[in-house]
Amino acid sequence: MRRPALDFYFEFASTYSYPAAMRIAALAQAAGVTVRWRPFLLGPLFKAQGWDNSPFNLYPAKGRYMWRDLDRICGRLALPFRRPDPFPQPSLLAARVAHAGLAADWGEAFCRAVYAAEFGEGRPIGEEAVVADLLQGLGVAPEPALAHARSEEIKTAVRAATSEAEQAGVFGAPSFVTADGELFWGHDRMAEALAWAVRAPAGRT
Amino acid sequence: MRRPALDFYFEFASTYSYPAAMRIAALAQAAGVTVRWRPFLLGPLFKAQGWDNSPFNLYPAKGRYMWRDLDRICGRLALPFRRPDPFPQPSLLAARVAHAGLAADWGEAFCRAVYAAEFGEGRPIGEEAVVADLLQGLGVAPEPALAHARSEEIKTAVRAATSEAEQAGVFGAPSFVTADGELFWGHDRMAEALAWAVRAPAGRT
Repeated sequence: MRRPALDFYFEFASTYSYPAAMRIAALAQAAGVTVRWRPFLLGPLFKAQGWDNSPFNLYPAKGRYMWRDLDRICGRLALPFRRPDPFPQPSLLAARVAHAGLAADWGEAFCRAVYAAEFGEGRPIGEEAVVADLLQGLGVAPEPALAHARSEEIKTAVRAATSEAEQAGVFGAPSFVTADGELFWGHDRMAEALAWAVRAPAGRT
Repeated sequence: MRRPALDFYFEFASTYSYPAAMRIAALAQAAGVTVRWRPFLLGPLFKAQGWDNSPFNLYPAKGRYMWRDLDRICGRLALPFRRPDPFPQPSLLAARVAHAGLAADWGEAFCRAVYAAEFGEGRPIGEEAVVADLLQGLGVAPEPALAHARSEEIKTAVRAATSEAEQAGVFGAPSFVTADGELFWGHDRMAEALAWAVRAPAGRT
């Protein structure tokens, strides 16, 4: 029997992607689900909806609520939380490096390191020096990783993940898609998505 | 010691308000929390954000997801579900009648009857004949109730609930506000809001 699978779509600028990325590996392991990490870019999807900024900045009441809600969530999960300034952080570089890492064996650890730096410590993850420092902390040589991240192959991979997300119906992050195409949106749907993945037929992949 | 309290802000056109309204009484009773039912109008709050329609209509991917998500939620809760057509339903009449009922003793039962008719059976809750039928089902004489609902007193009460919601930071429905001013948004935050209400100091009310 094939092991249940779940696609995990996330964006490095996305606030609720932080607790999801920090928790999904342990929850998926407990549920017996294989997670495919799919870093993508929300920017193009937001632009298609007419937004040139995060909806949390465009709609201040929604933004105020989100920061408070995220603070509560992190408190409950004992995750350090610091609001990045500016928000949203530029996420393209981290997305490219993550795709390079996922093609090797350090991708998931890199994703967690980026989120911990950004939302746990308030570090500017758009800066190459910060990303290099995170790589070094994982024992990954920064120069070859950054060179791979700048390659056409990786640029294409990030674009492909973004358009794959859009085709799966994704409109925000984090999102989860099961093998039978069921979409779940938000950190607060992660457990439900994992449970669905366990029950889902092998589906269309 | 004062009994814990929670303000429950909801809108009759709002999809996720349906499961919240059907469930909150039993959950609040189990938690020992007194709920103040606050039907309000999302329209003015949406207009202030530049929306002249439900965001679920303005953003089709978000709308498609919401209908699927609501279907899953109702399935899990064994609540009947039928998508109202058109969506959103005109909700002003129901809000006014609900305020009349909450000033008497049939308000909460009326609110549940409206949601069950709208999202369980797909009935047009903007029509006076439908509202009269729901009142009759509750043993409430429709004519005096509808007359009260049309009074200046009740129109003012609906406007007051709407501006009170806005001042509490509400930007969507359902929302929950504790005595110490903590805001929770969404059916999926209802249990957390009740738990917060139990722990909250008597606060500002």
